[in-house]
Amino acid sequence: MSDIENLARRAADGDPRALGRLITVVENGGEGVRAVAATLAPLTGQSQVIGLTGSPGVGKSTTTTALVSTFRSAGKRVAVLAVDPSSPFTGGAILGDRVRMQEHALDEGVYIRSMSSRGHLGGLAAATPQAVRVLEACGFDVILIETVGVGQAEVEIAGLADTTLVLLAPGMGDGIQAVKAGILEVADIFVINKADRDGADATFRDIRSMMALVTREPHEWRQPIVKTIAHREEGIDEVVGAIEKHHQWLDEHGELRRRREARAKAEISAIVLGALARKYRVDETLAGRVAGGELDPYAAADEILDR
Amino acid sequence: MSDIENLARRAADGDPRALGRLITVVENGGEGVRAVAATLAPLTGQSQVIGLTGSPGVGKSTTTTALVSTFRSAGKRVAVLAVDPSSPFTGGAILGDRVRMQEHALDEGVYIRSMSSRGHLGGLAAATPQAVRVLEACGFDVILIETVGVGQAEVEIAGLADTTLVLLAPGMGDGIQAVKAGILEVADIFVINKADRDGADATFRDIRSMMALVTREPHEWRQPIVKTIAHREEGIDEVVGAIEKHHQWLDEHGELRRRREARAKAEISAIVLGALARKYRVDETLAGRVAGGELDPYAAADEILDR
Repeated sequence: MSDIENLARRAADGDPRALGRLITVVENGGEGVRAVAATLAPLTGQSQVIGLTGSPGVGKSTTTTALVSTFRSAGKRVAVLAVDPSSPFTGGAILGDRVRMQEHALDEGVYIRSMSSRGHLGGLAAATPQAVRVLEACGFDVILIETVGVGQAEVEIAGLADTTLVLLAPGMGDGIQAVKAGILEVADIFVINKADRDGADATFRDIRSMMALVTREPHEWRQPIVKTIAHREEGIDEVVGAIEKHHQWLDEHGELRRRREARAKAEISAIVLGALARKYRVDETLAGRVAGGELDPYAAADEILDR
Repeated sequence: MSDIENLARRAADGDPRALGRLITVVENGGEGVRAVAATLAPLTGQSQVIGLTGSPGVGKSTTTTALVSTFRSAGKRVAVLAVDPSSPFTGGAILGDRVRMQEHALDEGVYIRSMSSRGHLGGLAAATPQAVRVLEACGFDVILIETVGVGQAEVEIAGLADTTLVLLAPGMGDGIQAVKAGILEVADIFVINKADRDGADATFRDIRSMMALVTREPHEWRQPIVKTIAHREEGIDEVVGAIEKHHQWLDEHGELRRRREARAKAEISAIVLGALARKYRVDETLAGRVAGGELDPYAAADEILDR
């Protein structure tokens, strides 16, 4: 306990190695996470948290790198958390770090970390917010959470952010696929990357058509669509502008507070369910009876809940 | 209760409208699901369940359509369940059905259904297996579960299948992204679709390199890599051949039984956790205290669990 508290205090004072070790504690799960959370709780809540999601190949890493440069130019300390909800490889995280590190490796105002999420006390949904808490406590002005895809796990991660960017690229799938992915619900800002490619206008129109299907009250946020060519840093200032505008809107409409409470709620809930999942385990015998058609799964669930 | 039982019996006797209504019951969740599960339990376990997953744009729908044709030529009754883990739109499901239906619309040996998964009693992880149970009970020889992406939710869905195909296409992202997506753990068979495009050989080599990193015992399954051009039905026979070979391997190594028990276990567990999540709710006051930094989320979780 005392070791963890010591580490947490050093990280909050700006020691990058202590920070790295703290996130490893959070990533590995176990009882250490509790001590980290308890120590850092009073220091959280001051960072702007930005989510960035999209399918493989749309240019998330390049966009993140360009955004980091822009935030740095404005004098902000930036942390990047690249979360891979499905990767079972811790080695993948290390490889990712190396690829990403190059441009900002020597900048002390930037912290970049890939994160796998297996084995955590409360699963992915608990590990990521704890890592965000660590970064908040360490005084980063901006925390970028980058996730692959737009599946359910990613939607949950987007729920951690104050502002979520959904990245698209021309030719990555038609309008039906975009609607199916449920991105309208997740996105605060749409970014069409690789906007110099054929099909960028079609992608733009697809998003517009989707948006037109949703009725909005005048006070509600209407997602802007920004075109970028991230590897040339084109359009990145516009993305940052849209983020600031959204942040202001959140603040003025009480949404920032509402989102952060919803985030805390999801976080507590994930921890509660993680604990309950360990308590109410399904045994082999019961699983065998259901697999064999002898018992239906709801009856099996009742048996476990009644114990 | 009696209505549901009646519906379940009619569906098992081959009435497609009753089948459609049953899946809607399963999709909508609620108490009706229990009655469906209880009635159908003894009829399940005879179908071959095949999962098919991949990023948007790799050609999942085209490949599914081609596979359906091939299974039909072999005289098998085929059901397709297209599951979208993130879509909040039931309308999306209807749209998807229309697009898919065209080629096999008039074939009574084919049942195609898109499925959204919101609002289910036990969430996605419970809704999909219940739908698979319904299709099993209705005597389909092959059930194809098609899912978007390779996020955590999709990995769970892949866990429902006896055999999981992971679809890739050239130029959809580099090797690092493939590793990060954790597909090696999920795939029983790799399919490189659009194999006439530039980069197909590079994608092949990427998969091979990934596979080379994993040490396998001689008795373990070694994933084949099949190249296809689905819209011309090229390579589809090879995919079906690989599926059969894998099924035989599963059977010979006791893996089929093990997988189905693991599936039952996950299914029961999802129902149990769904019930517990409704019981142990996080209240606003507690969430507000955590958001404000007054309380850490683990301490908040303890408060709920101690009640």
